[in-house]
Amino acid sequence: MKRLSEYAAEVASAIKGLDLEGREPSRLYSPIEYAMNAGGKRLRPCLTLMTAEAFGASISEAMSAALGLEMFHNFTLLHDDVMDKSDMRRGRPTVHVKWDENTAILSGDTMLTLAEGLMMRVADDKLRRVMEIFNRMSLEVYEGQAYDMAYEERESVSVDEYIEMVRLKTGALLGACAEIGAVIGGASDASAACMREYGEMLGIAFQIEDDWLDTYGTAEIFGKPIGGDINNGKKTYLLTYGLGVGGADSEALRTAVKLPAGDLRVRTVTRIYDKMGLSQQCRDAIARYSSKALEAVKRSGLSEAAVEPFKAMLDKLTGRRS
Amino acid sequence: MKRLSEYAAEVASAIKGLDLEGREPSRLYSPIEYAMNAGGKRLRPCLTLMTAEAFGASISEAMSAALGLEMFHNFTLLHDDVMDKSDMRRGRPTVHVKWDENTAILSGDTMLTLAEGLMMRVADDKLRRVMEIFNRMSLEVYEGQAYDMAYEERESVSVDEYIEMVRLKTGALLGACAEIGAVIGGASDASAACMREYGEMLGIAFQIEDDWLDTYGTAEIFGKPIGGDINNGKKTYLLTYGLGVGGADSEALRTAVKLPAGDLRVRTVTRIYDKMGLSQQCRDAIARYSSKALEAVKRSGLSEAAVEPFKAMLDKLTGRRS
Repeated sequence: MKRLSEYAAEVASAIKGLDLEGREPSRLYSPIEYAMNAGGKRLRPCLTLMTAEAFGASISEAMSAALGLEMFHNFTLLHDDVMDKSDMRRGRPTVHVKWDENTAILSGDTMLTLAEGLMMRVADDKLRRVMEIFNRMSLEVYEGQAYDMAYEERESVSVDEYIEMVRLKTGALLGACAEIGAVIGGASDASAACMREYGEMLGIAFQIEDDWLDTYGTAEIFGKPIGGDINNGKKTYLLTYGLGVGGADSEALRTAVKLPAGDLRVRTVTRIYDKMGLSQQCRDAIARYSSKALEAVKRSGLSEAAVEPFKAMLDKLTGRRS
Repeated sequence: MKRLSEYAAEVASAIKGLDLEGREPSRLYSPIEYAMNAGGKRLRPCLTLMTAEAFGASISEAMSAALGLEMFHNFTLLHDDVMDKSDMRRGRPTVHVKWDENTAILSGDTMLTLAEGLMMRVADDKLRRVMEIFNRMSLEVYEGQAYDMAYEERESVSVDEYIEMVRLKTGALLGACAEIGAVIGGASDASAACMREYGEMLGIAFQIEDDWLDTYGTAEIFGKPIGGDINNGKKTYLLTYGLGVGGADSEALRTAVKLPAGDLRVRTVTRIYDKMGLSQQCRDAIARYSSKALEAVKRSGLSEAAVEPFKAMLDKLTGRRS
């Protein structure tokens, strides 16, 4: 089985093969070409290829679906960046900044349809199953985004609500990537469901890791400045957990998150997190969801050797960068 | 065969059956329920049902696809209203006004995915064909919208460019509605292609009629104030034709469209259109595309009696309100 970076290189080369460059009208397709060639880890298509191979399919049998899932991911980023008014992504101006909002909306719509077209290239006997997984996943991702937006306006969100939101917003896509890879590899429904669970749990662990890095990471590892979530009032695992404990510390936290955005807010909130031992709570939760992911892939019926790369992906995404 | 209003009533009742009301998260699904129940002619799903019946399918076999196409249409309206900053639609505030822009973007995305899910309910042996028609059509609609946006910034657009833009933006969806109805009815590829051509030509005739009404209609028939296209600098059949003739009249037109938006601009432009005889040019073009539509449906192999409702729809949409 290949290393992640080898899968990623194959994905990047297949993206070039989509011939988005020069396609007319250019105001529709240039932003798509720009977004799809921005680099990134290619985590989602790699997971699809990895799973398809693990169950016995070739890379080429799974590549179109892998590209469709990467296209879908980038479509959500394009529209999320408009909704969040984010100016930068992967070190470059976002599409709505480089072009304009209308272009970002319309090119995003186009990416969703292109993604569907790529998914449809699967063999006839798998078409309905793959399209149904993709369709359900898409709705879950939008629902997760809707909860995320709704929670920003709410003062308190329970840890359970937070986890369900993350399962939808981040877990559903990774789950579908693994499940669709398994289906293309000829897995049974039961095995494919295990792989889906692997992807969902991986997604939750990955998001909690991201929350943790925003407070306890370094800008170098995290790739962006520390404290962004605290300054943006984002409901993270740390915050929802901290607010849910109750008592004086939770009260102090409730007050601290209302401080004006800036260093003082970040330092004050972090000090309360420290006092409450939330860094460790976070690490424990990451370990818990990682275990669930690993148990799921083990139940899928893959050999011990075939499980290894899924364990490696999990370790890589949850900070065990051995 | 039923009257259009009977098909429309069945569509409205089937939309209620989608159970969008009360679905969670409500910030995602309430705007969809609002948009889908805004009324309107239900032209597109009616065309699908009508075509499916003409080729021998039952209404119930074609209803999911018909709803999917109506959902797609309303998705494009939602996003177009954001892009055009339109405040009102069908006498009510648009979604981005009643809620906000982010909601309109995300609920629109959701509608596209719901539309795909509805299309997928077709029988297995027609799944790939229907999904491929839907997929190609979607891209054509976005491309048409992209050309429309690009043309707004250009001083002159040829009649041919205008017609191709309209074929994509309006014709492609009506074409797919008829083609998919035919496929569900068991039509051959050749017959389905004829029905597609009927829909495309109907769409072009319908859009030119709309352009004509904006200048030569009454607010009562048109349903909105006259002169909106002239004031918004929209590239219509009248304008692209008038600018393309050349000579003094075209020059006068080029100057008149730069007048400040308002009654004077509308009156001046209309006077030049009158002088150039463009109302008649417009009526001739509508008659030409109507004939093409009628010829296409006649080539489809339907009986003379079965062709009648398609002729009636054409007459209704191009102003022959007998």
